[in-house]
Amino acid sequence: AMAHGIPVRIRNTFAPGGAGTVIGAETSGAHSVKGISSIDGIALLNLEGAGMIGVPGTAHRMFGALREAGISVTLISQGSSEHSICVAVPEDQVELADRVVRRAFDVELREGLIHDVEVTDDLSVLAVVGDGMAGTHGISAKVFGALARVSVNVRAIAQGASERNISVVVNRADAARALRAVHSAFHLSPHTLSIGLIGPGTVGAVLLEQLAGQAERFRREFSLDLQLRGVANSRQMALDDLGMPIEQWREHLDGGQELDLERFADHIAAEHLPHAVLIDCTADAGVAANYERWLARGIHIVTPNKKANSGPFDAYEAIRRAGRRSGAHYFYEANVGAGLPVVLTLRDLRETGDRVRSIEGIFSGTLAYLFNRHDGSVPFSAIVREARERGFTEPDPREDLSGLDVARKLIILGREMGLQLELSDVEVESLVPQGFEELSVEEFLERLPEIDPEMNELLRTTRAEGRVLRYVGQLSEDGSASVGVVGIDADHPFANVALTDNIVRFVTDRYSDNPLIVQGPGAGAEVTAAGVFGDLLRLATYIGARL
Amino acid sequence: AMAHGIPVRIRNTFAPGGAGTVIGAETSGAHSVKGISSIDGIALLNLEGAGMIGVPGTAHRMFGALREAGISVTLISQGSSEHSICVAVPEDQVELADRVVRRAFDVELREGLIHDVEVTDDLSVLAVVGDGMAGTHGISAKVFGALARVSVNVRAIAQGASERNISVVVNRADAARALRAVHSAFHLSPHTLSIGLIGPGTVGAVLLEQLAGQAERFRREFSLDLQLRGVANSRQMALDDLGMPIEQWREHLDGGQELDLERFADHIAAEHLPHAVLIDCTADAGVAANYERWLARGIHIVTPNKKANSGPFDAYEAIRRAGRRSGAHYFYEANVGAGLPVVLTLRDLRETGDRVRSIEGIFSGTLAYLFNRHDGSVPFSAIVREARERGFTEPDPREDLSGLDVARKLIILGREMGLQLELSDVEVESLVPQGFEELSVEEFLERLPEIDPEMNELLRTTRAEGRVLRYVGQLSEDGSASVGVVGIDADHPFANVALTDNIVRFVTDRYSDNPLIVQGPGAGAEVTAAGVFGDLLRLATYIGARL
Repeated sequence: AMAHGIPVRIRNTFAPGGAGTVIGAETSGAHSVKGISSIDGIALLNLEGAGMIGVPGTAHRMFGALREAGISVTLISQGSSEHSICVAVPEDQVELADRVVRRAFDVELREGLIHDVEVTDDLSVLAVVGDGMAGTHGISAKVFGALARVSVNVRAIAQGASERNISVVVNRADAARALRAVHSAFHLSPHTLSIGLIGPGTVGAVLLEQLAGQAERFRREFSLDLQLRGVANSRQMALDDLGMPIEQWREHLDGGQELDLERFADHIAAEHLPHAVLIDCTADAGVAANYERWLARGIHIVTPNKKANSGPFDAYEAIRRAGRRSGAHYFYEANVGAGLPVVLTLRDLRETGDRVRSIEGIFSGTLAYLFNRHDGSVPFSAIVREARERGFTEPDPREDLSGLDVARKLIILGREMGLQLELSDVEVESLVPQGFEELSVEEFLERLPEIDPEMNELLRTTRAEGRVLRYVGQLSEDGSASVGVVGIDADHPFANVALTDNIVRFVTDRYSDNPLIVQGPGAGAEVTAAGVFGDLLRLATYIGARL
Repeated sequence: AMAHGIPVRIRNTFAPGGAGTVIGAETSGAHSVKGISSIDGIALLNLEGAGMIGVPGTAHRMFGALREAGISVTLISQGSSEHSICVAVPEDQVELADRVVRRAFDVELREGLIHDVEVTDDLSVLAVVGDGMAGTHGISAKVFGALARVSVNVRAIAQGASERNISVVVNRADAARALRAVHSAFHLSPHTLSIGLIGPGTVGAVLLEQLAGQAERFRREFSLDLQLRGVANSRQMALDDLGMPIEQWREHLDGGQELDLERFADHIAAEHLPHAVLIDCTADAGVAANYERWLARGIHIVTPNKKANSGPFDAYEAIRRAGRRSGAHYFYEANVGAGLPVVLTLRDLRETGDRVRSIEGIFSGTLAYLFNRHDGSVPFSAIVREARERGFTEPDPREDLSGLDVARKLIILGREMGLQLELSDVEVESLVPQGFEELSVEEFLERLPEIDPEMNELLRTTRAEGRVLRYVGQLSEDGSASVGVVGIDADHPFANVALTDNIVRFVTDRYSDNPLIVQGPGAGAEVTAAGVFGDLLRLATYIGARL
């Protein structure tokens, strides 16, 4: 009987004063909700006082006064232990309503039996209408949960015995947000994650490929809806309202607009979507400088970018604080060891009450490779050149050889241990000779053979002691941290790493005689992207998805 | 004005018919809720019909009729797009109310303008009353969320403009449950976890010690309230309503009652608590046989007990299904490698779309120790005796030597890979000679030297090939699985394990040239308990705690 035309009727009721907003008249069988609408131009009139309840005639007299004045009542609500009765009326009739109700209860008002007649205007009514809502106990929870998540204050509620309608009075300013939030709650998967990816370079592109391969399965098996609503590189961005097909991100970006990171974040964190995440696949400190603000806005962040976690400690703390306050999550497993479970393992140890005494390891896949290949048969500089040609080093190999990258990883782990480390606290042994920092990459590679005699001599003396050379990071609970070339006994686990293997060794109270060791490739787009992907799935479980 | 006496007033209103239930008049400043009460003996009267809305006099005439008959109205609700107006009245007045309202709308009823007057009885009103509730937008979400979680159907709602009261009409049968659920929502930490621990033996006792050490910090820092509400061993159980001080579990168990696992589970999963977990620290198949039923009831399970996961595949599937349906979680990281992140790593690989080709490893701390020590200087049987005396083996060392324990771990990992493995599919090489199975432990240890010549010969020939002996488990994506003694090259990672180290090696599409390796002590009460503890914290994050 009431299935069609209701929003229209509502708008008619208040035309021309109240412009109605209607979203989603589509049927959503599973939820038994047929439509969600909002009506603006509403005011609440509240009759309040200890002397009125239990006096059976109160409601009668109030509605009599309103009827005589020809005022249509949109909503009535009087709770069981209220000293008040409340009606919603069209805003343009509320003055009249106030007058006639005051007149009707004139005596009680003077005698203090009725405390006051209060008027609140600039309100809207949000109505959720359905046919089969009766008996579906989750409906009200869904409505009010959605409103709470977007911080909408509920001014009044009515749901009658027919159970086909929940009416909620909210501030006019909140109405659009409320409508969108409730609409999402019924018409989106509860685990919709709005994703914006910044930096679709080597790692970012592979991550998008991995996501594309799994997105359909997640939707099907876990009701987890990963919506790629934006992709941005350093110049351009592509925004999409409905979530672009992930495999088509390149076309979208090609047809995109000029980059504006703030607009990008706004778009990803659109109000009607329950959860938004920005994935930063750049290595850019400028992008990382936004984390605090984004987290404060409730946007989750997942990233392999080490810049924020290895920047000044104050900024690091501010990022943590922002996330804790807003409830937004910040994950960065791929900061260390790419896809290897390093940060996760460290966190588990600490959370379960273990005491981490030291962490040691080979944290650079590039340096691991260089020292694995350095057997004296080929000059060290030639190995660097070859590694660069195979894509195992950064375009400028000094970024690897300087040890700075390893130092960054070390302080990230140190801060995870609870230490207040700054990058300057790490003793770094650089393999870049003094004076080489200012050269162009070409000049640097040309002059690199100058270090070969020293590297050969180091190899010779270390071998004479029965040891091998490794570039190792060491971190202790006392706050000491160092990275550099170390001679390692041949039967030490660090001696037996291959190719670009990372190895991380945790010595704790529980893992003391034998440390806990995680080992495997610690560089490469596939495994780094997989580390980021793992974080994204952890985020999904935090927002309630069941993987 | 309304802060005190309200529940009494409510009860008086309906005395003697409606016995009121009141819970928690305590102030809870953070939530601005002063009291939650329920009133039984309520009926709803609903006037419904397309012809009544917009006719300003409808409410007036209805309340006029009720007033004349002296009927007090507890709650009124009329939504914005309702064709109906609904009032709650005392059950013993509803017949009268029905009569007088029908009389008042006699003409409209006959003309079909009013469809019907409907009466629903056997209801209760739940009232949430507060002073500072106005403006605290989470209140309604909390109320309705709590009701939805315990599947209470909401029949009618009223919340007036004073925002100091939310009244909810529910079925009488649901009233107590509704009251408890709403009470918990406001007066318990949102992340209260009711814990029952079964089997406080070596691992269980250490776990309780670890929990005791961290519980206060969790409560303080993460609002995570770990309530130990029961401890049970194979004979006795101690139940506690409020959560016993964890460090006093022994005293509680000593003063406990006879074990009844069903009553134990009932107690842990008490209706008023939002989340319950049973931690099974036994190795008992009888306890594991309850998992399916417990999970179906919504009780989470965390366990190092391998029996359920390595039992018949059908039963394993049934357990998974039960958890998926009810939403209860089932975690068992400590099934393999104690506290090492093995199951977690495997899951991450699979979920992020990697293809796991094979898993190999040393999965028994006991067997690792025996083969590490077996250098020919001491007979193998003497090493077994010594290990047993140091507590490195089961009381009956055949449980380790038979390889069955390793086979169990292998099929747990295999099933995690998606393989439909049964224990009988694993090719097991037992170190227990045929005919030794039936001996007593003493007889077995006495006759064990009989295997020494064979073990020495094996060691000699393997060494001649430049290899070392290890007890290895191997599992491939094609479903082949075997455990047994293998000769390993000296520079293989498996050769360089110490003491009771486990090592697990994952070969996947992404980790192909260099596998991903996790290594460390895979046995011992401390690290096994830590693995269980880690799972418990993972569960806490799934239920919304922010660690």
